[in-house]
Amino acid sequence: MTDWCFAPCREPDASAEAAARARQDQLTKPRGALGELEALAIRLAGLQGRAQPAIEQVAIALFAGDHGVVAEGVSAYPQAVTGQMLANFVAGGAAISVLARQLGARLEVIDLGLAHPVQLAGVRSLDLGPGTANFAVAPAMTAEQCAQALAAGREALQRAAADGAQLFIGGEMGIGNTTAASALASQLLERAPADLAGRGTGLDDAGVQRKAAVLAPALALHGAHCHSPLETLRRLGGFEIAALAGSYLACAQQGVPALVDGFICSVAALVAVRLNPACQPWLLFGHRSAEAGHSAVLAALDARPLLDLGLRLGEGSGAALAVPLLQQACALHAGMATFAEAAVSERAP
Amino acid sequence: MTDWCFAPCREPDASAEAAARARQDQLTKPRGALGELEALAIRLAGLQGRAQPAIEQVAIALFAGDHGVVAEGVSAYPQAVTGQMLANFVAGGAAISVLARQLGARLEVIDLGLAHPVQLAGVRSLDLGPGTANFAVAPAMTAEQCAQALAAGREALQRAAADGAQLFIGGEMGIGNTTAASALASQLLERAPADLAGRGTGLDDAGVQRKAAVLAPALALHGAHCHSPLETLRRLGGFEIAALAGSYLACAQQGVPALVDGFICSVAALVAVRLNPACQPWLLFGHRSAEAGHSAVLAALDARPLLDLGLRLGEGSGAALAVPLLQQACALHAGMATFAEAAVSERAP
Repeated sequence: MTDWCFAPCREPDASAEAAARARQDQLTKPRGALGELEALAIRLAGLQGRAQPAIEQVAIALFAGDHGVVAEGVSAYPQAVTGQMLANFVAGGAAISVLARQLGARLEVIDLGLAHPVQLAGVRSLDLGPGTANFAVAPAMTAEQCAQALAAGREALQRAAADGAQLFIGGEMGIGNTTAASALASQLLERAPADLAGRGTGLDDAGVQRKAAVLAPALALHGAHCHSPLETLRRLGGFEIAALAGSYLACAQQGVPALVDGFICSVAALVAVRLNPACQPWLLFGHRSAEAGHSAVLAALDARPLLDLGLRLGEGSGAALAVPLLQQACALHAGMATFAEAAVSERAP
Repeated sequence: MTDWCFAPCREPDASAEAAARARQDQLTKPRGALGELEALAIRLAGLQGRAQPAIEQVAIALFAGDHGVVAEGVSAYPQAVTGQMLANFVAGGAAISVLARQLGARLEVIDLGLAHPVQLAGVRSLDLGPGTANFAVAPAMTAEQCAQALAAGREALQRAAADGAQLFIGGEMGIGNTTAASALASQLLERAPADLAGRGTGLDDAGVQRKAAVLAPALALHGAHCHSPLETLRRLGGFEIAALAGSYLACAQQGVPALVDGFICSVAALVAVRLNPACQPWLLFGHRSAEAGHSAVLAALDARPLLDLGLRLGEGSGAALAVPLLQQACALHAGMATFAEAAVSERAP
């Protein structure tokens, strides 16, 4: 049921990439003067298989799920907020709703299972359970739940691709999910939980210490059983984190570039890369968040995010904020004149 | 003739800023979760004098001038490129041309004086001289030229403001102008030229050393005479750098926020702030460039730029690339629901 996760990924088109690189070097600017935007245009060319890439159709899938571990007192907000925010997403009042409108992006909201279920028009409900189990005492998910959540991510990407998406953004909502993400990152990176536990939605110092104090015994409980990335995901993850990982794997298998958001999405990306390393070229990173563990996860993924603005909201918002940079990189790549076209002298020999 | 530079600047509207701050704290996100975009929306509210700011009309003025100091062999490109690039700007093939189209921004190109004059439709020509004098041997500008260049910047801002600009971006083009900017920054910041001389359009290590070796005696020649920021600008600056400084001062006097580009523009901003410190609140900073001296200048201005992408092109391009972030900050500020509107629970007490 999870076999698809290990299926081959598409390979970036080396000839489109080479053509884009050659074009960059002829544009009317000192070579390299557009910095990371040059590498970005070249990379998008390889991913889209054309020398002049474009990002016009953006699809955002927002995965929501609740977390049993909130019973341990690890969040500054009550768990009912997950469902309340789902209503806000579809009503258009959340940050990601506003950014999706600005980008003209498709926004799909997927409820994977809440502790306090809600029925909302415009939300795709899967009901995998009343949130995950509390991983402080038991595995977060059954094998079936974990497989269903991974598949939900894949299906969201398939709908986006069928709609013509040229870029996929996954977002997440789930009170307690920085705790699950910190647990996953600690286990996968073999780092102490205290290094990866941050403020989440706004814990104070005592709250962060409590979070780390919940994580340490949970990792001791599950660690010896985490013999594969899939089992680690099942024991320590969450519905929305598994769905994100599934969506990233499907991006790489279907050939749609993904723009990864902040800490939780980056941990899902780490899970995806550990499950199937060939997915990595398809993952672009939108921003470096203020959440304490994000830099360690980015470093493990050798990722250089585009923005560094102290964001820590989630919902896919940091990725959405970076989309104009991708669009501008493509516009510059396609729209600038070459030295020959503009009759501009190249540098002195 | 330069008296206007010292005239009072507008003050940001503290009550609009307070209203915007109160609104930010009610939006459906953890407080501070939008990081620097929250401060940006609040600051723009103060500058625009309304609780819900917007950046719809952007004006870009691109100032070009040549530099006598290129006789010392400080640039990787021949001086004819300044005029060739002017043609490229108006033909639409330069980076800033592409970005202006993307933003729907007004782009005005102002030729202040080139070594190899060009006549181009769509370029406003002022002809202050055949480029500046070589500041390795003489002051770069006469007092009259410096005053005319400052006034040219002010006039560009006045045209932009009359056209309804809600944000002003100054750009620059001038072979040799990183050398002039490094000289100005060295003198104003009392730093060794070697700390502030960078690769410009693409010097190798030997070229950077030659640049620093040209700067040291030039600063020795002029330093004792630099008894005011205006005299420093006259002796070590350039036509386009003076115009940028004039435009920033006029922004502050007329109440139009300026988004400052990279190294050369930031040095012009430093000149403006030294001439009239009250202009500082009106200066926002688009990016941290790859040019070696930029970080020192930003630090002196206590500036936190929005982007850090290794850009080193000039033309105003790094500022133009940051405009969508300002627009998104405004859209989030205006478009997000409050906790009360969305019936989302606030954090636990």
